[in-house]
Amino acid sequence: MTRLTEDANGVYIIALTPFTDTGALDLDSTDRMVDFYMERGATGLTVLGMMGEAQKLTTEESQTYVKRILKRVDGRLPVVAGVSSAGFAPMKTLTEMMMGDGAAGVMIAPPSTLRNDQQIIGYYQQAGDFLGDVPFVLQDFPLVTSVTIPVSVIQTIIDQVPTCVCLKHEDWPGLSKITALRKSAETQGKRRISILCGNGGMFLPEEMARGADGAMTGFAYPEMMRDVVRFQREGELARSQDIFDAYLPLARYEQQPGLGLSIRKYIMAKRGAIASAALRKPGSSLSKDDISEIERLIERQTERLQELGQ
Amino acid sequence: MTRLTEDANGVYIIALTPFTDTGALDLDSTDRMVDFYMERGATGLTVLGMMGEAQKLTTEESQTYVKRILKRVDGRLPVVAGVSSAGFAPMKTLTEMMMGDGAAGVMIAPPSTLRNDQQIIGYYQQAGDFLGDVPFVLQDFPLVTSVTIPVSVIQTIIDQVPTCVCLKHEDWPGLSKITALRKSAETQGKRRISILCGNGGMFLPEEMARGADGAMTGFAYPEMMRDVVRFQREGELARSQDIFDAYLPLARYEQQPGLGLSIRKYIMAKRGAIASAALRKPGSSLSKDDISEIERLIERQTERLQELGQ
Amino acid sequence: MTRLTEDANGVYIIALTPFTDTGALDLDSTDRMVDFYMERGATGLTVLGMMGEAQKLTTEESQTYVKRILKRVDGRLPVVAGVSSAGFAPMKTLTEMMMGDGAAGVMIAPPSTLRNDQQIIGYYQQAGDFLGDVPFVLQDFPLVTSVTIPVSVIQTIIDQVPTCVCLKHEDWPGLSKITALRKSAETQGKRRISILCGNGGMFLPEEMARGADGAMTGFAYPEMMRDVVRFQREGELARSQDIFDAYLPLARYEQQPGLGLSIRKYIMAKRGAIASAALRKPGSSLSKDDISEIERLIERQTERLQELGQ
Amino acid sequence: MTRLTEDANGVYIIALTPFTDTGALDLDSTDRMVDFYMERGATGLTVLGMMGEAQKLTTEESQTYVKRILKRVDGRLPVVAGVSSAGFAPMKTLTEMMMGDGAAGVMIAPPSTLRNDQQIIGYYQQAGDFLGDVPFVLQDFPLVTSVTIPVSVIQTIIDQVPTCVCLKHEDWPGLSKITALRKSAETQGKRRISILCGNGGMFLPEEMARGADGAMTGFAYPEMMRDVVRFQREGELARSQDIFDAYLPLARYEQQPGLGLSIRKYIMAKRGAIASAALRKPGSSLSKDDISEIERLIERQTERLQELGQ
Repeated sequence: MTRLTEDANGVYIIALTPFTDTGALDLDSTDRMVDFYMERGATGLTVLGMMGEAQKLTTEESQTYVKRILKRVDGRLPVVAGVSSAGFAPMKTLTEMMMGDGAAGVMIAPPSTLRNDQQIIGYYQQAGDFLGDVPFVLQDFPLVTSVTIPVSVIQTIIDQVPTCVCLKHEDWPGLSKITALRKSAETQGKRRISILCGNGGMFLPEEMARGADGAMTGFAYPEMMRDVVRFQREGELARSQDIFDAYLPLARYEQQPGLGLSIRKYIMAKRGAIASAALRKPGSSLSKDDISEIERLIERQTERLQELGQ
Repeated sequence: MTRLTEDANGVYIIALTPFTDTGALDLDSTDRMVDFYMERGATGLTVLGMMGEAQKLTTEESQTYVKRILKRVDGRLPVVAGVSSAGFAPMKTLTEMMMGDGAAGVMIAPPSTLRNDQQIIGYYQQAGDFLGDVPFVLQDFPLVTSVTIPVSVIQTIIDQVPTCVCLKHEDWPGLSKITALRKSAETQGKRRISILCGNGGMFLPEEMARGADGAMTGFAYPEMMRDVVRFQREGELARSQDIFDAYLPLARYEQQPGLGLSIRKYIMAKRGAIASAALRKPGSSLSKDDISEIERLIERQTERLQELGQ
Repeated sequence: MTRLTEDANGVYIIALTPFTDTGALDLDSTDRMVDFYMERGATGLTVLGMMGEAQKLTTEESQTYVKRILKRVDGRLPVVAGVSSAGFAPMKTLTEMMMGDGAAGVMIAPPSTLRNDQQIIGYYQQAGDFLGDVPFVLQDFPLVTSVTIPVSVIQTIIDQVPTCVCLKHEDWPGLSKITALRKSAETQGKRRISILCGNGGMFLPEEMARGADGAMTGFAYPEMMRDVVRFQREGELARSQDIFDAYLPLARYEQQPGLGLSIRKYIMAKRGAIASAALRKPGSSLSKDDISEIERLIERQTERLQELGQ
Repeated sequence: MTRLTEDANGVYIIALTPFTDTGALDLDSTDRMVDFYMERGATGLTVLGMMGEAQKLTTEESQTYVKRILKRVDGRLPVVAGVSSAGFAPMKTLTEMMMGDGAAGVMIAPPSTLRNDQQIIGYYQQAGDFLGDVPFVLQDFPLVTSVTIPVSVIQTIIDQVPTCVCLKHEDWPGLSKITALRKSAETQGKRRISILCGNGGMFLPEEMARGADGAMTGFAYPEMMRDVVRFQREGELARSQDIFDAYLPLARYEQQPGLGLSIRKYIMAKRGAIASAALRKPGSSLSKDDISEIERLIERQTERLQELGQ
């Protein structure tokens, strides 16, 4: 069985949860979506994340959905499941369910009640104890969690909790955090964990240059992230940045708080990856103006990519 | 089957969730706790509330616990179950489970993402639609939810969502809200719903005088709330206030944010209502100093009650 | 000139800012208020605090008001001035103005942007540098500032910033913080600074028992705080607590968020300490119901104090 | 004297406050900066905004700085001054000072304590009353203020407060707000006020297409905003978007929370607009990595603009 390790790299797509127009889980689309991601360079999948509408699923639906994902993936990629919970008991139950079904690891965001260094460290120590040998991703996303985690705290967690194998870096953009963690690994012999970056890919070239191992986010064009990661690694920095710049106007548009997921689902449906762009309630929907702006940005993006010979 | 209505009154205790010292659900204590509450004047129970460590239970444990409560209550009291969720699908599933087991209604707090009047009204309209004919309590607790609900919004929800039959009033203390809602019922013919008050009972005499129907909170001495409600209703205001004042030093001590639940469980264990005072992780615990302060306050409380002939 | 030191103790009243009914500074009432506080046991005054409507004053008015306070006090008591600012330059200017006029020290709350231990320590180190040899009070009030300061951070500030001579303790109630700071002074030879407690005096007996040196808060009956502090020190714990309990119902009522200052000013005007109960805009006002509740609580308080022979 | 009106349009630059390396106000740079902005298409200036380090200035410095700005502008452009304050008295004093010196209007952000529609409307009504006939900009910036203002509330303020002549639109991006406000002006005969957009210009093409009148923000290349606004207005949408896209990678980089102002000042210093890139304390500074990323982005931007014949 695939297991998440410190070597995780490439593009871990934050997977959507496809629904029908009436709000039911759409399992056929789930299959197509997995294929879509894999064909466009995904090296891993992350399910039940914040942008996966996880909080709108019942426990039973969560399990049905993840089982379907895992069946379709069929061991070809590691699948990480979000298990953030207010209590350790439900987190443990969800983790056991997911790992039992074949997940490679789990992702844990800090509860918004944590208010200082010692509380954050204590929380991840306890989480590590509860989850036993299950490898986990520390999700560092202050904009949503309201918890700001200093580098020294991340370093302490790396030192003390061996099952913390990956940082989902989303402290917008906190490039200096990546630099500091890489430096402590190189010069102080600290354990080097995987760093995968979020933020919709909006800072991916700089994040890679600072030492990140890839992306863990959900832009509707995974090929952007695949190519940026690949060319950065191969030292073709200008090419990486050219491709990034071509996608940036749309990536920026997709980053609108409150509307971003609707935009991403619209594009994914348009590209044939899922049948319906519908969000489950409560959720936003797009206006005609929004849609015509998206369409225009896609057209321009296509043209620009052609100019670049992509 | 008992069903929650606009006539709900008296003392709806926010029930604890008893655990053993090692953090397992303690179902024997659950029975004793139900008896304890009923012997001391509870007219209803509210389970899976914020002070019930609901968020630390797995879905399965929640159901086991509530089934046990309902079995012990055996139809003698209405039981309200907290079902607040980020999405309507899990809220609906939890509601159906609870109502199927025999609950009288559910309680819904607003998600902290709601940021203006229209969003709050829309949320409760959608919730009402999703839950069908299940009666619910609107929980108004800005200190925890970060959502401030103006009187005009509560009134609109009362007007438009007939299954909203009760307000859990906890806008600290927001006495003017009670006055305004009662006035609109009396002078404008608006529907009069039940108003039960939280805040650990810290403002109960004034809340009753403003028109509240009782308390929905969880102080370790339910008899204080029983007596204050009773004597207020019977017009014995001085006696009501005398009793209240006797309990106030301890009630105040129990209201310490971050420590309050540990204090409440300590006293409940001391009084024999539950076997262990332990909170499930993550949770606080008491120091020796805390315990000796509690003991001293209990002693003084006992003396003062004797002086008052209680 | 009086200068704030680690020995500060007793009752530092958070002074009101008296306005006329039309919102002008009322300097005559300022004099009466100073007399009122001094006659009822104040050992210090704190001006321009959060409950002093400081943020509604122009810089010129702040100076006029503080000069008047200092003139009336005439060196008989130390006066601490709140100087919290988003930037160090305005903080320094305000501090120089206040100290030049005769203040004994200043009080600094952390800006709500601080999000972890290192940021808090860094902020107070920089503040200490900017203010030179001016003694200051560290205001620890998470409910309003959203900044939670762990004991270890307070200890580091005590260790590294010698001009931090006092902690205004208002981490509701955070009794364990007092215990921890006193223990580190006793057993590890750490510098012992003054600890004065806020919270409207709601936890004063316990705070004193844990090692606090007094109160820094603003209840409309300063004599409560004077007596509680005095009898605690003299070892008359029961008497201290009896007096406290007699005032508690009203103190509790005065602690209503959003309404508390209106209540305090109403009582102060009733007691003759200031001419008008008006708050400057934007500010709340009392309803008839509020006023009759206050009057009733005062009556009961008077009776209870008589019973106690006070 | 120029006075801000509903016709405000073009590019209102959020002006920096230049400091020397040691943190003193740099008035010579203030002059150069004004020239720099005017030469690159500014049609107005906004001073003492959040990105202008206003909160780090003393009142006296604020006045000195604004006087210098106004002298250099010499009536050629309208200058708007930020006067947001917790109280109306200091807001009024600051406003009178600024208008007396020659400002065209003021800008007011809502205090973060406002929590519902009625409170927001009430606040702006009171502010309008206090400021008399002074025209003001309503700053709608929830990310920083935590106050979300629905369209219906903005419309009510437009209806009831005639001196509200402009909306600084920064509800990221809230394009639908612009659409709704323009529609109510066109179809319901509502007053049409100026809408100028913030967000570092990151959504300027879409904002203009939705009916905005220009930008009010502070990207270090004002010429981007000048050209995007101009070509949008002239119907050259592709050209407008091409230019926007060329600047976008750097504009995105400048939008990093916590670091953005350091980046903007670095570029402004590099371009000769100000002498020093230093922020006043407390403030961030750039690492070598940051600087080399900025330099590379500027190089690429220059190349891309040449390709486009700009």
